[in-house]
Amino acid sequence: MQNFDYQTPTRLIFGKGVIAKLPNVMAQFGKKILLTYGSGSIKKIGIYQKVYDLLKGYEIIELPDIQPNPKYDPSVLDGVRLCKEHKIDVILAVGGGSVLDCSKAIAAGACYDGDPWDLISYKVKAKAALPIVDIITLAATGSEYDCGGVISRTETNDKIGYIDRHLYPVVSFLDPTYTFTVNKKQTAAGIADAMNHVMEQYFVEDATLLNDGFCESMFRSLMENGRKCLENPEDYTARAEMMLACTYGCNGILALGNSPSGWPCHGIEHALSAYYDITHGWGLAIITPRWMKHILNERTLPRFVKYGINVFGIDKNLDKWEIANKAIDETYKFFESIGIPMHLRDLGIDGSRVGEMAHHIAVNEGLDQAYAPLTEKDIAEIITTSL
Amino acid sequence: MQNFDYQTPTRLIFGKGVIAKLPNVMAQFGKKILLTYGSGSIKKIGIYQKVYDLLKGYEIIELPDIQPNPKYDPSVLDGVRLCKEHKIDVILAVGGGSVLDCSKAIAAGACYDGDPWDLISYKVKAKAALPIVDIITLAATGSEYDCGGVISRTETNDKIGYIDRHLYPVVSFLDPTYTFTVNKKQTAAGIADAMNHVMEQYFVEDATLLNDGFCESMFRSLMENGRKCLENPEDYTARAEMMLACTYGCNGILALGNSPSGWPCHGIEHALSAYYDITHGWGLAIITPRWMKHILNERTLPRFVKYGINVFGIDKNLDKWEIANKAIDETYKFFESIGIPMHLRDLGIDGSRVGEMAHHIAVNEGLDQAYAPLTEKDIAEIITTSL
Repeated sequence: MQNFDYQTPTRLIFGKGVIAKLPNVMAQFGKKILLTYGSGSIKKIGIYQKVYDLLKGYEIIELPDIQPNPKYDPSVLDGVRLCKEHKIDVILAVGGGSVLDCSKAIAAGACYDGDPWDLISYKVKAKAALPIVDIITLAATGSEYDCGGVISRTETNDKIGYIDRHLYPVVSFLDPTYTFTVNKKQTAAGIADAMNHVMEQYFVEDATLLNDGFCESMFRSLMENGRKCLENPEDYTARAEMMLACTYGCNGILALGNSPSGWPCHGIEHALSAYYDITHGWGLAIITPRWMKHILNERTLPRFVKYGINVFGIDKNLDKWEIANKAIDETYKFFESIGIPMHLRDLGIDGSRVGEMAHHIAVNEGLDQAYAPLTEKDIAEIITTSL
Repeated sequence: MQNFDYQTPTRLIFGKGVIAKLPNVMAQFGKKILLTYGSGSIKKIGIYQKVYDLLKGYEIIELPDIQPNPKYDPSVLDGVRLCKEHKIDVILAVGGGSVLDCSKAIAAGACYDGDPWDLISYKVKAKAALPIVDIITLAATGSEYDCGGVISRTETNDKIGYIDRHLYPVVSFLDPTYTFTVNKKQTAAGIADAMNHVMEQYFVEDATLLNDGFCESMFRSLMENGRKCLENPEDYTARAEMMLACTYGCNGILALGNSPSGWPCHGIEHALSAYYDITHGWGLAIITPRWMKHILNERTLPRFVKYGINVFGIDKNLDKWEIANKAIDETYKFFESIGIPMHLRDLGIDGSRVGEMAHHIAVNEGLDQAYAPLTEKDIAEIITTSL
């Protein structure tokens, strides 16, 4: 078991109607709020108006139009500028993981005099950040309970995950009813994203019995409740459990003391998104089973056997290789069953830039240090079999 | 799924040798430390001297001799007096859950002008508390990752669990090697305590699939690693995993969104300890299977069936009542197998005060609101069958 230093100070306020506590929470900061959001769905479902109704007396500056795979330019740069210009006290992020990830970069950038990219690229370590409160409308990324974010810079094909302990949200509001209107595509992408977060922590060298059990519970819960959410989008219990499960995805609690895994599927998917701006969860779902097939060998076999038996209930008396291969097939079939197109070509990605992407990933993502180390050639093969 | 408002801000610094970070952690507070500890085992294993070596330049006031089932008088009262007299900045608790629980009561009492019992008995709500740092030497209570404590007041036979959000430790140091010298009795008591913490959250009306999986992983991990710790007290991996599992026992993360359970075994055991000052974990181990037998009925059957199949691997094709009864028997046998005397009479408790204790519990513990509601008669029966 590895040593670790762990803290997640975020307060989770969870359940139907909890937004009523927003004024009480915001009262601890100053009066100037940067309200960040995405394409405007928060207006359709009434949260936007609710926020204004609840926060009378505050000065609210808006940063709308934050895109999926949130962009450094214009979103992060605009946000930082607004924070400095208006001397913002606190950021209120309303939306999914992209809005929150972008808001985290803004929060750090607002307290830094130089180019915010210095922080995202770890050239400079953040010394402070504005406080962040969020209201989550999509169960997926776990950004509401971690201190990381992912920012894309189109002109350099960079999609960078950055982590800084100043970036834990102070409070995350999680009302499952806000996810009732999330469509099937985004719901499925959220399930796949969260499933992959767990896989990235489950496939490691020396997991504890405890962490394995936590991860296996996550898989089973995400699959069962994910299916229910797709069947009946207003199934409160299923939406609630899925929302809670997603919060545990990235803050480390599923892997305390485990060896690092290298998060290989995220490493690969980040390049796909950076080059083609695809839906993150879909990209992960497509890559995952191909990555699994690629890394299955004598050494990794026991992990796949455990995964197959405990997650999919595959008969433990079968041949070990059969269990492992069945487990990978079941993974593929699950993603397919929730409506995810399982080939990159379905998302408009052809083979023309595979070499370029594989090189970019090999240089930037450190996957030669992953649980199952990946060379540039390995990465190219995984992408190619995913086409 | 129930609404919840959850936060555990404590930083966990975990692993062999992490005490080296102590000076860095303590530097954020002032120079006056109240060092709290128990019977002196920390001197034998060298932590006491290590603390002094690492904290040169600090003024350290000591409160030694904190007992198991820590006492309001003298420990809490002495601690509060020392804090006020010396204008203490921070409490450093070194020991097991009793030392830390006591230190929490002191931390709150030190910031309150009246009788500290006002806070423990919830007559007055704490407005502040001194910061607490702990170095844990016993895997059991989970106090290092929660905001609660249990204090005993001998003259009134009160053993009260109190919870206050000011009482999360700021930092908990968890070095599994410090538990190598914990003897078999205390190791077993710690396993039983932690097992029961999970049971108190598992046996509820409407648990999520996620929480059930987390709890079942806890049970399996505590049993497997607990056995290994007893076989080989210096098995680092087993001690480490057990230590980590114990931290999750009481901070609520295993039951977010579940209905409350009422913590019935703790309610009953607190009175046994208050009247007879027995080892908490032993008391819990003895009560638990009798409580299970008592509450097993048509309504609770499915929980016991799930418990039996997922925790003990009992054949799911057996008759449901057979599975449930086997699960309870396995629970009993597990505690017996780790060396816990399984009758209250073995701890010097006879039947003479059963009525008095049952009445005390019925009046003070609110077990008529538990998952399986218990009347005074029920409580008396559970204690009687445990004799």
